[in-house]
Amino acid sequence: MASPLEGGADALLLDLPRGPLQAYRARASFCWKELVLFLEGEDVLRLKKTIFSTLENDPLFARSHEEDISLDRYRELSFLRCKRIIEYNLLPLEDMVANPLWFQVFTNCLGMYDWSLAIRLLLNMVTFGLAIYNLGSERHLKYLPKIFNMEIFGCFAVTELSHGSNAKAIRTTAHYDPITQEFIIHSPDFEAAKFWVGNMGKTATHAVVFAQLYTPEGQCHGLHPFVVQIRNPKTLLPMPGVMIGDMGKKLGLNGIDNGFAMFHKVRIPRQDLLNRNGEVTLEGTYVTPFKDDRQRFGASLGTLSMGRVAIVGMSTVNLKLAVSIALRFSATRCQFGPSDEEEVPVLEYQMQQWRLLPYLAAVYALDHFSKSLFLDLVDLQQGLMGKDQSARQAELGREIHALVSASKPLASWTAQKGIQECREACGGHGYLAVNRLGDLRNDNDPNCTYEGDNNILLQQTSSYLLSLLASRIERKRHPTKSPLKTVDFLEAYPEILGQRFSCPSINSCLDSSVPLAAYEWLVCYLLLESYQKLNEEKRSGRNDFEARNNSQVYYCRPLALAFLELTVVRRFHEYTHQPSVPPPLRAILGRLSALYALWTLSQHMALLYQGGYFSGEEAGKMIQNAILTLCSQLKDDAVALVDVIAPPDFVLDSPIGRADGELYKNLWTAVLQESEVLKRPSWWLEFTVNKPRVGSLKSKL
Amino acid sequence: MASPLEGGADALLLDLPRGPLQAYRARASFCWKELVLFLEGEDVLRLKKTIFSTLENDPLFARSHEEDISLDRYRELSFLRCKRIIEYNLLPLEDMVANPLWFQVFTNCLGMYDWSLAIRLLLNMVTFGLAIYNLGSERHLKYLPKIFNMEIFGCFAVTELSHGSNAKAIRTTAHYDPITQEFIIHSPDFEAAKFWVGNMGKTATHAVVFAQLYTPEGQCHGLHPFVVQIRNPKTLLPMPGVMIGDMGKKLGLNGIDNGFAMFHKVRIPRQDLLNRNGEVTLEGTYVTPFKDDRQRFGASLGTLSMGRVAIVGMSTVNLKLAVSIALRFSATRCQFGPSDEEEVPVLEYQMQQWRLLPYLAAVYALDHFSKSLFLDLVDLQQGLMGKDQSARQAELGREIHALVSASKPLASWTAQKGIQECREACGGHGYLAVNRLGDLRNDNDPNCTYEGDNNILLQQTSSYLLSLLASRIERKRHPTKSPLKTVDFLEAYPEILGQRFSCPSINSCLDSSVPLAAYEWLVCYLLLESYQKLNEEKRSGRNDFEARNNSQVYYCRPLALAFLELTVVRRFHEYTHQPSVPPPLRAILGRLSALYALWTLSQHMALLYQGGYFSGEEAGKMIQNAILTLCSQLKDDAVALVDVIAPPDFVLDSPIGRADGELYKNLWTAVLQESEVLKRPSWWLEFTVNKPRVGSLKSKL
Repeated sequence: MASPLEGGADALLLDLPRGPLQAYRARASFCWKELVLFLEGEDVLRLKKTIFSTLENDPLFARSHEEDISLDRYRELSFLRCKRIIEYNLLPLEDMVANPLWFQVFTNCLGMYDWSLAIRLLLNMVTFGLAIYNLGSERHLKYLPKIFNMEIFGCFAVTELSHGSNAKAIRTTAHYDPITQEFIIHSPDFEAAKFWVGNMGKTATHAVVFAQLYTPEGQCHGLHPFVVQIRNPKTLLPMPGVMIGDMGKKLGLNGIDNGFAMFHKVRIPRQDLLNRNGEVTLEGTYVTPFKDDRQRFGASLGTLSMGRVAIVGMSTVNLKLAVSIALRFSATRCQFGPSDEEEVPVLEYQMQQWRLLPYLAAVYALDHFSKSLFLDLVDLQQGLMGKDQSARQAELGREIHALVSASKPLASWTAQKGIQECREACGGHGYLAVNRLGDLRNDNDPNCTYEGDNNILLQQTSSYLLSLLASRIERKRHPTKSPLKTVDFLEAYPEILGQRFSCPSINSCLDSSVPLAAYEWLVCYLLLESYQKLNEEKRSGRNDFEARNNSQVYYCRPLALAFLELTVVRRFHEYTHQPSVPPPLRAILGRLSALYALWTLSQHMALLYQGGYFSGEEAGKMIQNAILTLCSQLKDDAVALVDVIAPPDFVLDSPIGRADGELYKNLWTAVLQESEVLKRPSWWLEFTVNKPRVGSLKSKL
Repeated sequence: MASPLEGGADALLLDLPRGPLQAYRARASFCWKELVLFLEGEDVLRLKKTIFSTLENDPLFARSHEEDISLDRYRELSFLRCKRIIEYNLLPLEDMVANPLWFQVFTNCLGMYDWSLAIRLLLNMVTFGLAIYNLGSERHLKYLPKIFNMEIFGCFAVTELSHGSNAKAIRTTAHYDPITQEFIIHSPDFEAAKFWVGNMGKTATHAVVFAQLYTPEGQCHGLHPFVVQIRNPKTLLPMPGVMIGDMGKKLGLNGIDNGFAMFHKVRIPRQDLLNRNGEVTLEGTYVTPFKDDRQRFGASLGTLSMGRVAIVGMSTVNLKLAVSIALRFSATRCQFGPSDEEEVPVLEYQMQQWRLLPYLAAVYALDHFSKSLFLDLVDLQQGLMGKDQSARQAELGREIHALVSASKPLASWTAQKGIQECREACGGHGYLAVNRLGDLRNDNDPNCTYEGDNNILLQQTSSYLLSLLASRIERKRHPTKSPLKTVDFLEAYPEILGQRFSCPSINSCLDSSVPLAAYEWLVCYLLLESYQKLNEEKRSGRNDFEARNNSQVYYCRPLALAFLELTVVRRFHEYTHQPSVPPPLRAILGRLSALYALWTLSQHMALLYQGGYFSGEEAGKMIQNAILTLCSQLKDDAVALVDVIAPPDFVLDSPIGRADGELYKNLWTAVLQESEVLKRPSWWLEFTVNKPRVGSLKSKL
């Protein structure tokens, strides 16, 4: 469709190169530029364009495709690029403060280019910087300008070789010495070495180190954060007593130097305790504003929320890139056809549509959710900064924690599975490194693990929901209401549980309101089931620890995931059905919303039957037919929907996913560009001269 | 448990080192050595020991852990190792002929060490060598000894840049010139370049090239195989007219040089047409023993079956290694516990058991199936060699083709998902390259794609089943019976469809006979549904191509998978319930069989409800409870079950998976062994001197 845009916006969105994708583009039911503008807005488009153009125009960011780039060289490159980004100052602090969402845009744009680069920056500025800001006090503000101009470079050190998920049990100690007014940071043995710390391997000069704080009389006050200088910024050599190293190769993200550190009685000034949640006086007396150690601990690690929300965005970006590559490939790769003479694009096959289009819909739904969650967190953070002590602020904190704890698992797993499907859907060509699906998978993979293992995080969400139900049932408290309204529907759970699936025709099933209703039933069902299961476990004599562990697999885990899916579905449903959606975009957005909702619901079909919401053969078939119908309705729009989300070719960096759709030309050219492609191998004599003699060696046992 | 073995067998199975895994080993309900001996037999154990010891004792096979091994160096190493294996002649031809299964053992042992090595050997000896043997005639036998002593090195070239799955449409041509009695091999353009050919990139001297055969009058006779010399064995330089190159880095298997080739009017002697299925006379007349081109084409590509069966074994091996690593990790990694003081191994958590133990059971079931399928194929191949023209041989061919076509998808996907689960179940440490889960995932990934894309292969299986049902319904033919009896149950499909799930108690659910019955119902249900769906599509005016495409997603695809799962479950059920199972092993094998069967069935729970086999809440819960009960019964045996399947530490090559269970010592040591771990980076001046100035650069648009 022709562009109805004018002036500024149109100049921001250049026409795409003509080529084999034209056929699908011509069939699109909407104008891709109009949708971009609706989703992003002109300002964000301008910011993106600035970032992408800057990278493309600077040779330091040239795509090297060095097959054999060494770890050391990759780390150097990603560090040099970090510096260059600072020199460009692409997102000045004042703009970020005025438009917090721009920070997410900025991060995701850099991540589309390379997550190693983006994460190194984030670890220094956000994870390290925000930890100092949120956990420290006025005396620590001196560190902030040094972080921003890279006088120092920071990292965040919680996990140890033998402790990750159970952060409370970490064993690094910080003993206070009142004579010198210093803390002595110490690793009792190598199992307590800090481990997996990003930026620590080769570059960080400072670390926020979590350690068990001991006062002189020998009492332990639990985990506290300290700023510890680990390298000399003038030499990058380790500070005395610090043994610090690089963990070596990982499955992905190899531009980041994850590291380990052991501390041998390293002395730091008393002032370098980040003292927001606990302080030691000159004389060695421990003081804390918290009554409860648990609460203090929660507040200390609360700073991880920002990281988890960032991961929701990172995962969505990874899936966005993978889906863009796989769909452009599918629209240009022809294979088989109704006759031997005629081949059709693989996107014409229902199977290929079903494999890929739900992930395309997921990208749109998760992208919207990721933005909205980020803004929720900004709201919370602003309350924290303003020292908001209201009940609403506390409730908001709990609700956001519950949302974030399931959002990271949902987004990272959806991306993990989606990228794998995209890899396979591109066949052999998806297995060629240059096409980038491997890097996307490898770089996305840790999203399932870091900042909280997915399966363990989900327990936070289910606990939140269970506590709401418990107060409603046991104490008959005030109605269930939360600041973001994500749980308000639970108020009506007895009525919801009485509902049954009803959908008179397939057409009435093609809107996200149908799966939305099913999800409300499902969450209520799983919540009540989980509640009963936990009680049953306790009644049969198990303690809380056992009862909780035995209620995860088929109860609390699916509960947390279903609740989050419902929330994503609801927010995207509301977004796509609001009156401000331009009429030409309503149909396409509605279909994306319906497809994501039905598809993700369809994973729970067994439960819907088991609990009685579905009955009879027709219910299941109706959902299946609705999914396939939406796939076939969306397939002609798929290329245009990719044009909306895909970054420029330079950033997407995949020969089979370029906007011109010249699949084979681009792939062939890329393959020929690699080094020594046509050359005889250096070791050719090993074939031609040094021939093996069968059985000439005897095996040794 | 103490070993009841004596003499020879006991000497083959050394005791495992004591260490932290001892606690679980002591709790095992069976003797691991007894189970190894039952599963493998003494001869196979001796062969494995010879292979593994030979590798471990030869420095050429030393595990380098060079983080930055270059593509070229890795290819050189894997080539040198190929030669060394030939020098050891670990499996002499006469032994292989006497014990065909030993060939599978040999391949899998090398693959456990490194699939790049094993596959390079296989591609030359089996894919290339067997193609010449099966597709050629006496005049081609001259090539075989040259293959075995590496005078020449071969590859198998079917796919092209623009054609893979639709092999029939490949475009390389072979025109016969009666004047010189040569074929002229030609690639019309780069889209017809041979692509993805293993061994072709740097080393192969000869290729079996599939090309469209044209006789002088201009008629095309379809795809035929030719032996084409592509490099000079004295120089490893390409032959005149052959443009040949290396495809560069892939997601995994980088010790193999996948390559491409374009032929510019390359002339080869007439005799190098592999003429088993089609021949051209001196004068240029085409002759074939087949009446039907389709049949001839099938016979030509039938040689791929061996590759597909090999992939079933490869996938199982990969899952075996991953599960071994993850379970030993889970038995030694402690995290959280009932109190702050006491931490328990993560294997004690129901969630971790549920994530990993079904995959352990899958390894046992698939391993047995993989052997049995290999022997079926040997049976078929022997018939081919003996020129067996019987109806049974033809039926066996069809049945095995149907089994193989779904086995490769089932095994490769199970491994893909299982390895990912293992990676995640090991948390961050699973993401460290040295622990090998990344390589396993990356090396397993192409199993989903090569030798036939999984989703497309599945259509072969469903078509076979549908044709059986069609003859039964439409022509009321003789009873459905097949040589391997995998489809005999279909005879009773109307009665089976009348059955309903019944399981009076959880205990009666703990045997694989329960899921076996459910699977029979499920396959019958999906078969009838698929049949009806296809007919419905045709009735509504769609042609065969469309009807088939529109019946895959929710019909033919799950049908093929469920049928294969049933077959795997049935074979393992029969194997574990046979009278020859030693009594001390019956319980453990029975549990493995039940767990695999119930767990894989549980993926179809929605269908079981939808079709009415299940009804009410209890059915689903019964299956869930049975799975969790089996997990808890098996968790104390998990380490011993891993001891049965895991190769020696040198081969497993994962610090977190070593048999001594010294998780942290091994990991710490491994990390410190990598290069330059504690060194300042070479580019330290980039931090210490060349400081960035915020905003010093202007972005260019």
